[in-house]
Amino acid sequence: MTPPDASTPELHPDVAELGFLLGTWAGQGEGRYPTIAPFAYGEEIRVWHVGKPFLAYVQRTWSLGDGRPLHGEAGYWRRSSGGVELVIAHPTGIVEVDEGGVEGTHLMVSSTAVVGTSSAKAVAQVVRQVDVEGSDLTYRVSMAAVGQPLQEHLRARLVRV
Amino acid sequence: MTPPDASTPELHPDVAELGFLLGTWAGQGEGRYPTIAPFAYGEEIRVWHVGKPFLAYVQRTWSLGDGRPLHGEAGYWRRSSGGVELVIAHPTGIVEVDEGGVEGTHLMVSSTAVVGTSSAKAVAQVVRQVDVEGSDLTYRVSMAAVGQPLQEHLRARLVRV
Repeated sequence: MTPPDASTPELHPDVAELGFLLGTWAGQGEGRYPTIAPFAYGEEIRVWHVGKPFLAYVQRTWSLGDGRPLHGEAGYWRRSSGGVELVIAHPTGIVEVDEGGVEGTHLMVSSTAVVGTSSAKAVAQVVRQVDVEGSDLTYRVSMAAVGQPLQEHLRARLVRV
Repeated sequence: MTPPDASTPELHPDVAELGFLLGTWAGQGEGRYPTIAPFAYGEEIRVWHVGKPFLAYVQRTWSLGDGRPLHGEAGYWRRSSGGVELVIAHPTGIVEVDEGGVEGTHLMVSSTAVVGTSSAKAVAQVVRQVDVEGSDLTYRVSMAAVGQPLQEHLRARLVRV
């Protein structure tokens, strides 16, 4: 029982336009929402591929104060005929299906479905913007949740490491 | 920008009953479905925790013939007051929310929601059974998809490595 060769194959042409996301990114962000105290966080994002028509995505954040883990999420980027697709699972018991578009190195997707387990908080809508300029990645996540209207929740800046 | 200390904290008591899933597992499985040719696969499953009330889960499979990657999925196990929850994102553009129960080291969950992107195949229902006996993990995944009724799709046996 041997795992497959870890050498990286060529990027699948279906996701070539998303290749600018590939890599390991590290940085900091800040979060706010009407129902919580504002907070700052450290973050690492990893995006990689295995030669198939998707990019794998994981992210984790931690407290800048004591390094304790805060959030994490995992999912996959895909292309559809008309745009970009993103599916994500959250340790908060929520899954997210996003669709949108890419222009150059600027992505914007909005949720077409957000579904949770019976113990999860109610999230109604998520909008994600990702911009890569050189070795800088910035993103914003807006969210409508727990009865609050859609509004900015997270913004962060990371660099490719 | 330093990531948090990688030392493993204590398992959160909310997921203590799922602790038997922790570890790296490797083995083989076989798949079948009326719409495809039967196939065999190698597989690695990793389940870990960061001290928070969930277990992180990733899985990947590969062709036993040439080692090329076949499938992968990523998600999180949680406990609710009444049972077990599992959220998963698939590179096929599908997300899955499962709920069920645990008895000893035997888990069974069934999807309460399966949602896909506009380019994803239609999956209507997923049922997962996981059994751990000592260092052996066996699972079965049943699925209703692409117009077919619920039926066994995957079965595999792995050992803790």
